[in-house]
Amino acid sequence: MENRKKNFSEWYNEIVETAELSDKRYHVKGMNVWRPYGLKIMQGIDGIIRRLVDSRDFDEVSFPVPVTKDQLMVEFEHVKGFEGELYWITRGGHENLDVELALRPTSEAAMYPMFSLWIRSHADLPMKLYQIVSVYRHETKHTRSFIRIREIHFFEAHTAHATYEDAEKQMVQYKEIWERLADELCLPYITNRRPDWDKFPGARYTLAFDTLLPSSRSLQIGTIHQYGTNFSENYDIKYADDDGEHHFVSQTTFGMSERLLAAVIGVHGDDKGLILPPGIAPVQVIIVPIPSESEDTIGYSRKIGDDLLKMGFRVRVDDRDNYTPGYKYNDWEMRGVPVRVEIGVREVGSGNVTVALRSKKGKKVMSRGDFVSGVTGLLGEVKASMKESADKLFLSLLTDSSSLDDMKKAIGATAAYWCGSKECADHIEAEADLDPLGFVNGTEDVGKCIVCGTDGKKSVFSKSY
Amino acid sequence: MENRKKNFSEWYNEIVETAELSDKRYHVKGMNVWRPYGLKIMQGIDGIIRRLVDSRDFDEVSFPVPVTKDQLMVEFEHVKGFEGELYWITRGGHENLDVELALRPTSEAAMYPMFSLWIRSHADLPMKLYQIVSVYRHETKHTRSFIRIREIHFFEAHTAHATYEDAEKQMVQYKEIWERLADELCLPYITNRRPDWDKFPGARYTLAFDTLLPSSRSLQIGTIHQYGTNFSENYDIKYADDDGEHHFVSQTTFGMSERLLAAVIGVHGDDKGLILPPGIAPVQVIIVPIPSESEDTIGYSRKIGDDLLKMGFRVRVDDRDNYTPGYKYNDWEMRGVPVRVEIGVREVGSGNVTVALRSKKGKKVMSRGDFVSGVTGLLGEVKASMKESADKLFLSLLTDSSSLDDMKKAIGATAAYWCGSKECADHIEAEADLDPLGFVNGTEDVGKCIVCGTDGKKSVFSKSY
Repeated sequence: MENRKKNFSEWYNEIVETAELSDKRYHVKGMNVWRPYGLKIMQGIDGIIRRLVDSRDFDEVSFPVPVTKDQLMVEFEHVKGFEGELYWITRGGHENLDVELALRPTSEAAMYPMFSLWIRSHADLPMKLYQIVSVYRHETKHTRSFIRIREIHFFEAHTAHATYEDAEKQMVQYKEIWERLADELCLPYITNRRPDWDKFPGARYTLAFDTLLPSSRSLQIGTIHQYGTNFSENYDIKYADDDGEHHFVSQTTFGMSERLLAAVIGVHGDDKGLILPPGIAPVQVIIVPIPSESEDTIGYSRKIGDDLLKMGFRVRVDDRDNYTPGYKYNDWEMRGVPVRVEIGVREVGSGNVTVALRSKKGKKVMSRGDFVSGVTGLLGEVKASMKESADKLFLSLLTDSSSLDDMKKAIGATAAYWCGSKECADHIEAEADLDPLGFVNGTEDVGKCIVCGTDGKKSVFSKSY
Repeated sequence: MENRKKNFSEWYNEIVETAELSDKRYHVKGMNVWRPYGLKIMQGIDGIIRRLVDSRDFDEVSFPVPVTKDQLMVEFEHVKGFEGELYWITRGGHENLDVELALRPTSEAAMYPMFSLWIRSHADLPMKLYQIVSVYRHETKHTRSFIRIREIHFFEAHTAHATYEDAEKQMVQYKEIWERLADELCLPYITNRRPDWDKFPGARYTLAFDTLLPSSRSLQIGTIHQYGTNFSENYDIKYADDDGEHHFVSQTTFGMSERLLAAVIGVHGDDKGLILPPGIAPVQVIIVPIPSESEDTIGYSRKIGDDLLKMGFRVRVDDRDNYTPGYKYNDWEMRGVPVRVEIGVREVGSGNVTVALRSKKGKKVMSRGDFVSGVTGLLGEVKASMKESADKLFLSLLTDSSSLDDMKKAIGATAAYWCGSKECADHIEAEADLDPLGFVNGTEDVGKCIVCGTDGKKSVFSKSY
């Protein structure tokens, strides 16, 4: 296996292939095949997201992939932001289509004409919908599994509210949802308010959740957008208030993608392979019986497996007879399984189990009973140590700069005061090869711009994916 | 509400709209929007399918939607079968694509080049994969929600085996899976071997599961296909046996779609609306507290609701205060909820509940304890009565014909002996306006062809969707 810290890119490509997460040999370049193990992890992430938004009264919908050129053109700034990377369907059967259809790059143009039909009065608000679907971008840049691809597994929430204030409250709720998700995935992040030239096309403002990978580059893994009435005025989405007066709704969106999986791989992995947060691991506990003359170790293993299964854990007994225990240990370590249990003759004889946690060194012997009743605790231990390692990595990659010289020397991301102007950002880019991720969200931390010396706010700069 | 038996088509369109299952006002004609309630029911069906195939060692994958023209052309008969209804992507950004991309009409051409990479030796077989995705057909015929549309919610399983015999065993397993699914959905069906001119393009043979709707027309709701080596020879999918010799794999597929939902709607509904099988109902038990001076009825309802929730049932308490109990009863009946519980002052006083089953007439009073511990039984009662009604409808729509005159008079589908020739099928079509669904699968029932008098087998004819 490649060295994760020294050759992150190579390590990343290798683990995606070795753990059979996705296959990039599909015959349309930049579009990858989800293999069973990768898809299961992604579905685990989707499951957490569904649970979080469902419990906050979001409803799931599913819109068609194609959207007409006319509908895309409705919000000019929006279509301008995407037109360079749209795929166009121009033929159906043997005929040219009367109206050309784009594969959605995101779903505003698909959804908002329907919002305009569905929303009539105050009673229909707030409307809170989401979908988990594929979106398409004809990327011209170099593609990379889960990070920059042409068919993207995507979560998007869309809400409509009576007032801008209500929409602002939704933005706060998004941040709470995000925090819970990031906790489950053990991902550290900073929330940055993107510069105006880098916000979502059509949004009033964009807040982005950025994490840092061992390559020292930042990865945007979630964004929330305040649209105000920018889209509703163009798509004519109005409601009647109690007096029968019509108002445009205020809208927000929340977008995330398979980049969440990329972050899980990159932030947590090590030179043995993946390390998966227990909440999304397709196998949480792997039990490896060590062959013996008798069948005892297999029977004993199966009983423990059945106990855990009944308690709702995702557990497997690896009783393949054509592999050595050592091979199996490496194999499941590579796949990132949080808890491994080894069952040999000694364990059966003493009524014990030997336990190894993927995220910590060493093994421990526990009584079988203590192990079974303590699995939740062990998974919690893995989660806690994953967060600790991830935070350590994150902090090592995020320094403070008080001069342009500091910025030039910075490894990873660096924080500095910035006035917010494009000119100063361009200067930093030219000198230090770093891009602005924006003002740190909600910061009261102000100081003089590191370039021009006028009033600035704490901001983060980095190279990014 | 329209009359289901007299005006089935109108009834069907009305209930799809009223129950908010899908919206056909999307701006690309023939592509519909899944609304929350419709999507939840479909996800319920998907969930049963996943459970059934996962437990038989299938692995879920997800392939990209676009597939190149070159790969589609690999199996000539296959592409011929679809070329009239393919959507073509010809542009990306502002440039024409070097290679035109079709939206998959089904996934053979997407999957099999990868199979050829993944399958090396006997140890890789059987390979059993499936995906639940959208497929696309540029339909020129009149579209109808869930039955004939341009973006289709689709399940497809694809298997590869060492021998034709192994593939035949897979066909038997498919039939078992189908039987379990049809049982959960309470759907009667006949299994027909499609005439050669109507089999899946590229298949050796096709078995179809057909049900009958109150419109007297048949609806194909599942198909399984034996490909033999037709595709593997073209896509070069080979494995090495123990002696190192290479052989082409034998393949099968199993396809189902949102037509399953159409069948559930059409077979089970009545003039009040939907009737949903308990296994897929998004709400299995609806509890309606009847307003009183005190808050007693709501508190009592919530306690029962919480009990059922803990037991894993999907339950809701309808405590909306701007609707009458009568309105709520009708509303939940229209949405097809299997069990309704009414809680008035009398129920609270006596420690009882009043229960109505969606699929049966009348109400019954039960003690609260008996109700809570008996919910599984009540849902089973609903399921049993749904099957009984569905079977009755099915039998009323499937008659026997012993002459062409019988066939002309037949309402719905009719069974007759048929030699299997296209000439005789054309004759029946011209005289009785019925199409052959094919020989009844596995039939030993033979007789003289109803048209030409030569040796024939029991076959089914109908008008179909």
